[in-house]
Amino acid sequence: MSEPAATPTPPTAEPPVEGGEDGASTSKKAAKKAEAKAKKEAEKARRAAERAAATAAQTSAASEDHATENYGNETPDTKLSGDAAEISLEKIGEEHVGKKVLLRGWIQNSRMQGAKMVFVEIRERGNWAIQGIAAANAEGTVSRQMVKWIGSVNLESFVIVEATVQKPLEPVKACRVSGYEVHITKFFVHAAAPQILGMTLAAANRPIANFSDEQAPAEEGVEKLSISGAEPAGIPAATMLTHLDNIVMHKRAPVQQAIADIRIEVKELFREYLRQRGFKEIIVLATFANLDDSLIGAASEGGANVFRLPYFGTEAFLAQSPQFYKQIEIAGGRKRVFSIAPVFRAENSNTPRHMTEFTGLDLEMEICDYREAIDVLEGVLLHIFRGLKERCAAEIELVRSVYPSEELLLPEPGKEVRLTFAEGQALLRAEGPEEFRTVSDDEDMSTAQEKALGALVREKYKTDFYVLDKFPEGARPFYAKEDPSNPKVTQAYDFFIRGQEVLSGGQRINDPVELEARMRKKGVDPNSPGLKEYVDIFRQAGCPSHAGGGIGLDRVVAWTLNLPSVHLASYYPRTPKRLTP
Amino acid sequence: MSEPAATPTPPTAEPPVEGGEDGASTSKKAAKKAEAKAKKEAEKARRAAERAAATAAQTSAASEDHATENYGNETPDTKLSGDAAEISLEKIGEEHVGKKVLLRGWIQNSRMQGAKMVFVEIRERGNWAIQGIAAANAEGTVSRQMVKWIGSVNLESFVIVEATVQKPLEPVKACRVSGYEVHITKFFVHAAAPQILGMTLAAANRPIANFSDEQAPAEEGVEKLSISGAEPAGIPAATMLTHLDNIVMHKRAPVQQAIADIRIEVKELFREYLRQRGFKEIIVLATFANLDDSLIGAASEGGANVFRLPYFGTEAFLAQSPQFYKQIEIAGGRKRVFSIAPVFRAENSNTPRHMTEFTGLDLEMEICDYREAIDVLEGVLLHIFRGLKERCAAEIELVRSVYPSEELLLPEPGKEVRLTFAEGQALLRAEGPEEFRTVSDDEDMSTAQEKALGALVREKYKTDFYVLDKFPEGARPFYAKEDPSNPKVTQAYDFFIRGQEVLSGGQRINDPVELEARMRKKGVDPNSPGLKEYVDIFRQAGCPSHAGGGIGLDRVVAWTLNLPSVHLASYYPRTPKRLTP
Repeated sequence: MSEPAATPTPPTAEPPVEGGEDGASTSKKAAKKAEAKAKKEAEKARRAAERAAATAAQTSAASEDHATENYGNETPDTKLSGDAAEISLEKIGEEHVGKKVLLRGWIQNSRMQGAKMVFVEIRERGNWAIQGIAAANAEGTVSRQMVKWIGSVNLESFVIVEATVQKPLEPVKACRVSGYEVHITKFFVHAAAPQILGMTLAAANRPIANFSDEQAPAEEGVEKLSISGAEPAGIPAATMLTHLDNIVMHKRAPVQQAIADIRIEVKELFREYLRQRGFKEIIVLATFANLDDSLIGAASEGGANVFRLPYFGTEAFLAQSPQFYKQIEIAGGRKRVFSIAPVFRAENSNTPRHMTEFTGLDLEMEICDYREAIDVLEGVLLHIFRGLKERCAAEIELVRSVYPSEELLLPEPGKEVRLTFAEGQALLRAEGPEEFRTVSDDEDMSTAQEKALGALVREKYKTDFYVLDKFPEGARPFYAKEDPSNPKVTQAYDFFIRGQEVLSGGQRINDPVELEARMRKKGVDPNSPGLKEYVDIFRQAGCPSHAGGGIGLDRVVAWTLNLPSVHLASYYPRTPKRLTP
Repeated sequence: MSEPAATPTPPTAEPPVEGGEDGASTSKKAAKKAEAKAKKEAEKARRAAERAAATAAQTSAASEDHATENYGNETPDTKLSGDAAEISLEKIGEEHVGKKVLLRGWIQNSRMQGAKMVFVEIRERGNWAIQGIAAANAEGTVSRQMVKWIGSVNLESFVIVEATVQKPLEPVKACRVSGYEVHITKFFVHAAAPQILGMTLAAANRPIANFSDEQAPAEEGVEKLSISGAEPAGIPAATMLTHLDNIVMHKRAPVQQAIADIRIEVKELFREYLRQRGFKEIIVLATFANLDDSLIGAASEGGANVFRLPYFGTEAFLAQSPQFYKQIEIAGGRKRVFSIAPVFRAENSNTPRHMTEFTGLDLEMEICDYREAIDVLEGVLLHIFRGLKERCAAEIELVRSVYPSEELLLPEPGKEVRLTFAEGQALLRAEGPEEFRTVSDDEDMSTAQEKALGALVREKYKTDFYVLDKFPEGARPFYAKEDPSNPKVTQAYDFFIRGQEVLSGGQRINDPVELEARMRKKGVDPNSPGLKEYVDIFRQAGCPSHAGGGIGLDRVVAWTLNLPSVHLASYYPRTPKRLTP
């Protein structure tokens, strides 16, 4: 094919403006209306421009089309050359220049340049996109009709493209693959997108404006976004509801794929570190007799918060933690186990920190001293944080370009920060805000205290990651092991990043007599249904000392990236008001 | 310490007889009674023998005990030497001979030899056990009192032992570590087992006699065990109910740990193969709006079989498959995904093939031709089967010593067997049993047909693993892609081992218009709640062709090992009658 005009201007037109709401200034309905109207109008304008270009192209086009076999909707009869190598955009390089390649991907943008040329951005995955050019040639293998047709393909259609790799005269700023472009010889639509998308890719890639489940402006408990500087003009942000209603476009947004990739890597780093240290990955169950209810219900002041379901004439519960199973495994002869499993909380909490179903990363291990468990938990989290910086640098950068955040400060090796709960409270009393001058060593911290302590620790120790150990007896459930040298505190701990808890754990009582005694002290009946089965684990045969902890996967992702909500870190946030997708 | 007598007889006494039921010959109640009685009597006899030995020891013992700091129940004041290296039995070797070591494990057997010597088997995990000897010495660092005390420790107590590694004069047949033994210098009980175990280790390690949930003799649908040759005299098998009621001892049985290890490795091999081929591990959800119900319910003749639960004023469902999420991921721009997640079936089926909650290994991928998906699925299963033979040889051998089975026959590389459904039926008609002479190409196979075909394929192709492709249109759900060249069949497949299905999958329709048309043809309303959301995935933006499949993890483990029930392959089998543990 002939080369296209020497210096084609890369496409700079903004994608169609997608309506969204300005949660802070307009009411919900008005915003929705405006959103819909803006969307329609923008789309109208775009289509009109396209029609004009198409008409222009047609008028001046040669009446006969010699390229009919080189474009169109893919059918079983569609023929590709067969000699084009399928490549991945990530791996495109000098060796491909001048070669014919096969691309499969989405049209994320297109723009006619007169009647003889069209620019299209072809995206493969994440933000891996390349500029394609189709220019009508004298031989007619690319016709004006073909150029026009390519220009009229709906955005986000999946296409199959045969093209030759070339180097552009100037880097293509709009595409991640900026050093190469492809000159299109064949172009087929494999799966068409609708004419009007529910949410454009550009809007999907903007920071989410509002995480409320109710299309309401940000309220108490729903933190407001105040991200500035990164807003491309004309692309208002959409709400989380709009994102979830348009889950396919939400998922296609490069920022969302980057968050998902980071999440996958957190899981993998967790698993890799533990397997290397002799941990076995167990599978725990979600459905359950009432044991879990009792276990957690009795332990938490707020009540059970457990989902119940009819189960063949009786009632089942959804697991609130895999702790029962982890402990059976230890009693059952495993030295070290971990699980990655869904956990459920029937809590009617509509905040950026809560979900009704989330992923727990849990471990449990036989110990001589419970600090061995802290070592492993600290080690695995540091492995995750450092591993992410190494393996997901590009993804983290991409996320930051949409949700700006400061780098997570980590302690130097050997300088990990572990404070006792009492030391934390003392620090708050001595150097914290006025209102914390009288906090007690015997009472659990509030979220506000935690955040204030996080700031103090950051300032003093230059780390966003630290451990609080030896929580007061009253703040921990009946199964927590008391400190033999000071029964006012337990051998239980929480881990924090940026002043927010990501892990909770401790040594569990392994002696059934001691366990029963502590249950009674806490006002819990060891013979009640559910709890009896729990104590039985330790009665059935001698169970060694053990400790462990549970990490909230979504929280690790969200707080590491300093995202405005855990909902953004989840694949499909499940909230009291949202059961689909 | 002084060496013990030159050739101590290794312990050969059988562990206490644990009652069980002989499901085939006695009634349920009588068996239970006999079980309890036998258990009590055996335990009584054992204790009497112990007391006699102890009295004998005491009578002849030196009155003063110089070893009181070397044994007893562990307390915070317990002192170990501090110079003993903690070792793992798996790694014990020549370099340890004559060295002092620290062991932490369970007493699985003990026997007094006169008043001055005791043999104990210390088990670390699985069947990794070593013989320990404590012999009273002249110096008194091991006293007769200490020997006696060690001999009286309840079996399955967790102990901490300091000892010197020695080579026995003859290999210790009773222990996996047969080439070494340890001469005990300190012995502390860290966690005591009860005097009478609910199930002994020996009983726990025997083949399970009956998998019924109701303590009834084996009935229709519950296959009978007929394993012979491997039954140690005097240790009757226990039922699955007894095992689950004694979950800790069940878990400690080496055979059960071997099955669990194999299961872990299946998951790991699945993940490893797919990650190497660019698959991303996604997390799917368990709770769901009614979509899943419609998706599966409409597809299966038998109705929905879905668990429902109250969810903040509405109703949620438990996922019956991750298919909805896998397909969103493909539509949402992922090329290849897999998930390892719980799936739920509210089916009141009490058979060795069914559970209400199990683990699904699922994958989905963008394709040009659906046979690419068969390639990957066949590849991953072969990777699992070959990987198990390599990595779990010892575990497989251990399982076979309890549940004998023939090795799984695999095809030679390049000679994988793929038959079309029609070819399978033709083979059955031509060479199968009389009753299958007239089977139709248009109707799904029965379990009996599948098993008969499995036998024919094994004979003809020398493989237990094969693929059946192009299932008839009527046998597949509305989302299955029809064969463009023959709409009477679909591009859907099942995979089998030993004539039993372990995988089901196919190409899904990715075009919303085609999907709606097939739905209507199957009598399903594409606009009904739930289904509309499903079709919307493909309406939101162009979705490429894709195919995938789901593997039942428990079935892969169970049928690979030819276990009598999937319940045995699961960590915690969940059945209509069993919600705990």
